[in-house]
Amino acid sequence: MKANIGLIGLAVMGQNLVLNMNDHGFKVAVFNRTTRTVDEFLNGPAKNTQIIGTHSLEELVNSLESPRIIMLMVKAGVVVDQYIDKLLPLLSAGDIIIDGGNSLFTDTARRTLALKDQNLLFIGAGVSGGEEGARHGPSIMPGGNKAAWPAVKTILQAISAKVDGKPCCEWVGENGAGHYVKMVHNGIEYGDMQIIGEAYQLLSQGLGLTADEMHAVFADWNKGELISYLIEITADILAFKDEDGQPLVEKVLDTAGQKGTGKWTGINALELGIPLTLIGEAVFARCLSAQKEERVKAAQLLPKHSQIFNGDKQIIIEAIRNAVYASKIISYAQGFRLMREASKEYGLALNYGEIALLWRGGCIIRSGFLNDIKQAYDASPDLENLLLAEFFMNAVARSDKGWRKAVILAIELAIPTPAFASALAYYDGYRTERLPANLLQAQRDYFGAHTYERTDQPRGRFFHTDWTGHGGKTASSTYTV
Amino acid sequence: MKANIGLIGLAVMGQNLVLNMNDHGFKVAVFNRTTRTVDEFLNGPAKNTQIIGTHSLEELVNSLESPRIIMLMVKAGVVVDQYIDKLLPLLSAGDIIIDGGNSLFTDTARRTLALKDQNLLFIGAGVSGGEEGARHGPSIMPGGNKAAWPAVKTILQAISAKVDGKPCCEWVGENGAGHYVKMVHNGIEYGDMQIIGEAYQLLSQGLGLTADEMHAVFADWNKGELISYLIEITADILAFKDEDGQPLVEKVLDTAGQKGTGKWTGINALELGIPLTLIGEAVFARCLSAQKEERVKAAQLLPKHSQIFNGDKQIIIEAIRNAVYASKIISYAQGFRLMREASKEYGLALNYGEIALLWRGGCIIRSGFLNDIKQAYDASPDLENLLLAEFFMNAVARSDKGWRKAVILAIELAIPTPAFASALAYYDGYRTERLPANLLQAQRDYFGAHTYERTDQPRGRFFHTDWTGHGGKTASSTYTV
Repeated sequence: MKANIGLIGLAVMGQNLVLNMNDHGFKVAVFNRTTRTVDEFLNGPAKNTQIIGTHSLEELVNSLESPRIIMLMVKAGVVVDQYIDKLLPLLSAGDIIIDGGNSLFTDTARRTLALKDQNLLFIGAGVSGGEEGARHGPSIMPGGNKAAWPAVKTILQAISAKVDGKPCCEWVGENGAGHYVKMVHNGIEYGDMQIIGEAYQLLSQGLGLTADEMHAVFADWNKGELISYLIEITADILAFKDEDGQPLVEKVLDTAGQKGTGKWTGINALELGIPLTLIGEAVFARCLSAQKEERVKAAQLLPKHSQIFNGDKQIIIEAIRNAVYASKIISYAQGFRLMREASKEYGLALNYGEIALLWRGGCIIRSGFLNDIKQAYDASPDLENLLLAEFFMNAVARSDKGWRKAVILAIELAIPTPAFASALAYYDGYRTERLPANLLQAQRDYFGAHTYERTDQPRGRFFHTDWTGHGGKTASSTYTV
Repeated sequence: MKANIGLIGLAVMGQNLVLNMNDHGFKVAVFNRTTRTVDEFLNGPAKNTQIIGTHSLEELVNSLESPRIIMLMVKAGVVVDQYIDKLLPLLSAGDIIIDGGNSLFTDTARRTLALKDQNLLFIGAGVSGGEEGARHGPSIMPGGNKAAWPAVKTILQAISAKVDGKPCCEWVGENGAGHYVKMVHNGIEYGDMQIIGEAYQLLSQGLGLTADEMHAVFADWNKGELISYLIEITADILAFKDEDGQPLVEKVLDTAGQKGTGKWTGINALELGIPLTLIGEAVFARCLSAQKEERVKAAQLLPKHSQIFNGDKQIIIEAIRNAVYASKIISYAQGFRLMREASKEYGLALNYGEIALLWRGGCIIRSGFLNDIKQAYDASPDLENLLLAEFFMNAVARSDKGWRKAVILAIELAIPTPAFASALAYYDGYRTERLPANLLQAQRDYFGAHTYERTDQPRGRFFHTDWTGHGGKTASSTYTV
């Protein structure tokens, strides 16, 4: 009997997806570049399963029923193209390749079109949930060539997480749509983690709470409007003791990597001209954390800050909770605003409410909160910005006072809270009818004759003023600073 | 008699550079795609000069002495490639093309190498100074094929700005170095303008100062450590009255564009993994300003903030000045830190002190401050970060209290100051020995088996913990979230 699906790449995500498929009754053939890993997998976690190990791509392809479905769980980038090139001569018209890695959405769009020319069907599927999710039900965001969807829907939905009986796996859209949405998901994940990190830093460095006390705080937060996987595991982590009985988290080195999807989300926001300040700060915060030696040096050389907190801890803990919640709302508002622009720019026809549902289960950013987003888009599918939805408008208004209090305390104590602060600046900027860009436009017209529009004239009419009295009359047309 | 140099593209920058060259005794031949512009220029600003008008590229090329030097002042991007393609069959070995537009540094590197193969010499030169600078002395940052430098040095240095007798034009480096440095310059310009905008917003919306009062504040600031072209023109702009006697700046529409070099600087920082938070916020602030209709709607729908300032205005004005100065230092520290990484990554061998000198005159960001940067690099050419130089360390320490006061007031009054706040968060993060990235690494290991390093173990040793008690032992190697 032939296998239903083949999977290439037996790192942790690949192995767990295979075991997950096997649990759901699918027969899976596997291949890995280092073939010893295939044998170790078959003799280890895959022992006593239906899983078929193969030692060459030919063997893998020949073990599959038609149309063949092959899922790649390999490093994003050139490795994906290499496997596609190797598979091409082995496959037949109508066969399907699924890329389940964190590929750049533009690569996925390119591959979808290139394989279409070869009569092959390509799907780029974002898969989120880490080790646990892959094993027991991830969130899956498939996009690409929709003709492939009927053949893979059963398997992908079967292995995905379920919430209220609905699979966290639905067709996202054409070409790069699946990986685009996964990219934004990861950017949001960067933001969520940074927000929690800032709360942790304020609680530990600012208020002097112990790990056990912080465990209690996060466990408590996880009962309310912040309920989410990341808050839950933060509580777990804070409670975890090393062999010597000390909190293990305190022995973990504070340097984080940032290569990949978080960075791409920031770059895409800059490309599309949509403010994504919180995620941007989150990515840069990881970069700064990586400059560990320089920071240690700076901490020794630069002046120390001596102010110490001596107020009511409970009030500040609640203020920090407000800051976490409001900042999270801003981050998602920015992320969904970005998707809205991308949907228009790339013709993705994204369904924002459905995307919120996909993220409700399985994935790292799963939370109760995503139901509120779904409801906001149900009520108003064309919503320009989540901040204009009544639920979020009220939620931020309720958090406003505590949020400001937390950021002000952080500034007084010299504890960095770039995400809280940038989210607040965005919120205040977003509801400011008149930003100082009038001065900026005047400056640009002053030094570069770039022209400006006027508040007392219709849009689209451009004026130039000789602000100095001795500039020329030539407007800057093709050359812009 | 043949011309010394040809220039293509007669928009404002091009026209003014030509007039500048003519003033310095160089004979210039000009061409423009719309040839009527050539005639209008010759009969207008170029009347009674030695400037030669040409109506085809052939005519332009034939009017030049050998080796021919042709400067492009056209729109960055594909138009530059189109002109290069058209010029190629008309030029001879050893001829020189200078691109004086705001080209992407990777394009410049590519063109330098491609033209080298054709025995032509290419220079990508950043030119800053806007209309006035181009006319009377810009800052010029040439890079590319160094073999071209002796032939063009005389002209470019002659037309450039001079400070203390030194031309603000020196060879920057190979390939894309000139345009790379110009890109960072423009990013810093975005930052400087945003910083000034935030001061303006706080002074006007927060303290309720009139345009005339603000004119006096900026004119005063321009006498001290903030002395700079942008502060100077801000003072001018605030004093400028419309025909009805009202301040013209208040009638300028508050929507700014952001396409181009500011965006590229942010993207490059994300690519290289170097925190460039202030410029990032500045770019995003322009994006937010462009969402004018959405902001007007949000201003109506979202709750209003009622807090009003009623303290001592003079104290706050000084605090805002501190915030401007400290934020500016952070922005330059981030920008130079980025150039340091780029120099290493792309092999540019940049000379940071020299770059500061190039920017001292002619260009939009010229300021007294750049001498301090030059001195910091003279004292310590390998300086990792400007914040570690004694002068800037002390300057920030002196500004610290007022800076925090200004940001706290902005938060209390709900006036957005994203640049001030993100600069402050960077400063506090930079001198924090231990950032919350330990929690983040624990989270990543929890959900993705990404492993972590430990503070009590040597760097480069990676650990994985089964935080839940039921995860697997497979470390994530090829697949990273």
